[in-house]
Amino acid sequence: MIVSGQHADLLIFNGTVLTMNLDNEKIENGAVAVSGDKIAAIGKADFFSTWKIYRAVDAKGGIIMPGLVNTHTHAAMTCFRGMADDMPLMTWLHEYIFPAEACMDESRVFSGSLLACAEMILSGTTCFCDMYLFEDGTASAACMAGMRAVVGEVLYDFPSPNYGNLENGFIYTQELINKWKDNDLITIAVEPHSPYLCSPKLLQRASEMAQKYSLPLVIHVSETENEAAQIRQKYGSSPVEHLAELGVLAPNLLACHCVALSDNDISLLKQYDIKVSHNPESNMKLASGIAPVPKLIDAGICVGLGTDGCSSNNNLDLLSEMDMTAKLHKVNTLDPAIMNARTVLRMATIEGARALGMDSITGSLEPGKHADIIIVDTSSPHMTPMYNPESHLVYSARAGDIITTIINGNVVMENRQILTFDVEKAMADVNAFARTLNAVS
Amino acid sequence: MIVSGQHADLLIFNGTVLTMNLDNEKIENGAVAVSGDKIAAIGKADFFSTWKIYRAVDAKGGIIMPGLVNTHTHAAMTCFRGMADDMPLMTWLHEYIFPAEACMDESRVFSGSLLACAEMILSGTTCFCDMYLFEDGTASAACMAGMRAVVGEVLYDFPSPNYGNLENGFIYTQELINKWKDNDLITIAVEPHSPYLCSPKLLQRASEMAQKYSLPLVIHVSETENEAAQIRQKYGSSPVEHLAELGVLAPNLLACHCVALSDNDISLLKQYDIKVSHNPESNMKLASGIAPVPKLIDAGICVGLGTDGCSSNNNLDLLSEMDMTAKLHKVNTLDPAIMNARTVLRMATIEGARALGMDSITGSLEPGKHADIIIVDTSSPHMTPMYNPESHLVYSARAGDIITTIINGNVVMENRQILTFDVEKAMADVNAFARTLNAVS
Ligand SMILES: [Zn+2]
Ligand SMILES: [Zn+2]
Repeated sequence: MIVSGQHADLLIFNGTVLTMNLDNEKIENGAVAVSGDKIAAIGKADFFSTWKIYRAVDAKGGIIMPGLVNTHTHAAMTCFRGMADDMPLMTWLHEYIFPAEACMDESRVFSGSLLACAEMILSGTTCFCDMYLFEDGTASAACMAGMRAVVGEVLYDFPSPNYGNLENGFIYTQELINKWKDNDLITIAVEPHSPYLCSPKLLQRASEMAQKYSLPLVIHVSETENEAAQIRQKYGSSPVEHLAELGVLAPNLLACHCVALSDNDISLLKQYDIKVSHNPESNMKLASGIAPVPKLIDAGICVGLGTDGCSSNNNLDLLSEMDMTAKLHKVNTLDPAIMNARTVLRMATIEGARALGMDSITGSLEPGKHADIIIVDTSSPHMTPMYNPESHLVYSARAGDIITTIINGNVVMENRQILTFDVEKAMADVNAFARTLNAVS
Repeated sequence: MIVSGQHADLLIFNGTVLTMNLDNEKIENGAVAVSGDKIAAIGKADFFSTWKIYRAVDAKGGIIMPGLVNTHTHAAMTCFRGMADDMPLMTWLHEYIFPAEACMDESRVFSGSLLACAEMILSGTTCFCDMYLFEDGTASAACMAGMRAVVGEVLYDFPSPNYGNLENGFIYTQELINKWKDNDLITIAVEPHSPYLCSPKLLQRASEMAQKYSLPLVIHVSETENEAAQIRQKYGSSPVEHLAELGVLAPNLLACHCVALSDNDISLLKQYDIKVSHNPESNMKLASGIAPVPKLIDAGICVGLGTDGCSSNNNLDLLSEMDMTAKLHKVNTLDPAIMNARTVLRMATIEGARALGMDSITGSLEPGKHADIIIVDTSSPHMTPMYNPESHLVYSARAGDIITTIINGNVVMENRQILTFDVEKAMADVNAFARTLNAVS
């Protein structure tokens, strides 16, 4: 249908459009029109021939698709990338990570988060969900970078390097909510660390606060068998059962990791429509275990992908996370058909958005949604030949193939150049901080 | 020690040199001098201040290291990259791969191999070991690309799309040996497919041929439990025991995959100094299983890394293979310290070279060795900050970070541009072939 007289601020044309909508609709030689911060229309290139276009972006025969959604990270931990690896968890935490985190402040969190935004934008991520300290710094960084973000201050029962005692943690969270409530890009979440670092009272209060303001509640759950055993010993229940008993399970809950789950846990997650963030690279690198993701998906539970902090990964690259996800579950179940490229791609896009309560805003290309769009170059040797774009995105593409990133209608990266902030300065700031830390070299 | 009056054709300077020699020596602000096809000297930048240098290559503060060694691939299978995924092995083979392979000819193998060389050079691989059909095409492609390669025609008991009956397979291999014997870059190997596709007689004859000419003998061994069970049923022995009984086990044998191994198999591999090619991404994607690599390394067995054919991967990227290797074995053993970055990096360089019988030629930077050198850029956000180059190479680096590739003293890639052949033509040729094939889209 040709509608004359229509206009758009931006037209991305000359590419294969992967909408990631319910039907996984794919449009060869397609185009996406953006007006303001939203997608105005999607169609064959011809469809737009009579439109007035303010600016056209040539996808050069590549893939035009929704930006990727990173459902779990600790952005500022870029500062500790590669500082210490390949050691037992407790040595890693107590000799390297905790001492380094004691040196964190808001300005360092800001620089580390900006560096994270650069890496994410350059690898096709347009939205991320963050948990860390001094999160006003992370919100400010995401805002400056032009990234969509869910941001929450980590809450636990021992004193925080940021806010000190827990009472101040809730005050800090309330201040975040007040400060960022009208921002287009930033959503504040309430983020108790985990059942093993949070008292029942903390968890319930956090849940009430999230309910009161209709915000996501983000928490680490059952990252290891060891952690699950600890909770079972203390409360006589699994971590998920414990959360159920506390009345904390609700559709706004995003449970990160979920490695050690019983069948009853899975039933509870389904019953309460809990969202899960799957972080395979972190779980592998820390030797935490393998989350039963095929079972979760079979049960109809929403599962998004996350990188976790890049000090346990050591990158924020969702393309490599997709590849790892598909391969890990195939070998773990000895079934090559257990998880296909499309399923994984949906986890990294629309399911991730759904996990954050944002599937009406981002995660797929559909008219009326916010314009979070990436262009993937397909002209290089490692993407040749091209039988199936979904296969290539999961098994062959690399971060360097992302040539344009658009968030909320704004072109934040073009031809591998970040347009929204000074990346060199962010790197210099993080490097200066890194030189003061204890590292394995 | 300053030696005046020395000269070099090439000096790579301004980088951290990772030699990967026995002591894993690392030289900050180091440089590598190349004369002809060999490494003349390695040292601090100062060391070369009085040298006459014909050409200088600035590493721009990055990492200067040996090129990566891919110990197992089927290069021409780039033609089938992403053609069919996520399905049971037999469907994949019988409905897609075998019919496609029936359309192969020498010119298609040449184009597909050239495309593979482009991808490998662009991801830092300087040497690969190949098994496929029409391997004169692969040898010619590697030669044109300027890559070091071990190349062998696959031998099995049923008729080959190339040579027809087995007798002609041995004649073809003899012709390869004669044709390429004086080539600097190409080594011919004798390559029976596997114990399950090769009769005892074939295996023994192949072994004798390899011994006669002092060539590598390359074979798939115990890729799956199913295959091992098949051999056990037929011969009453495991695949490794079967090879031992046939007198085929010797230090020139490269056993690819080795997923399904008993403790006795591991003892035999050690006893006969067999080399192993570990292919984790292919083993994961095809759901073959997880090779007991930590046990192999503990036993003192030489293990290199391989990508396998890129239709079961779907790339030829050893950087991602390293990341996968470290993470897979950590999660499989639930021990984060089981395999560190250095071990994996050695598998992808010097141990890979040793697996191919080439550790006196390539795999580390040492004076007198052939100059197979790559430069890794470390200035981008995902490589910042930099505490430890070995960690970053395994857990953070991506193919796009390789900015220069030098093979046998020849700069084959600079600033992401292949200098030795027309990559666009290779891609066009493969694309034309791909359009004729049956694929899942
Ligand atoms: Zn986390
Ligand atoms: Zn193979």
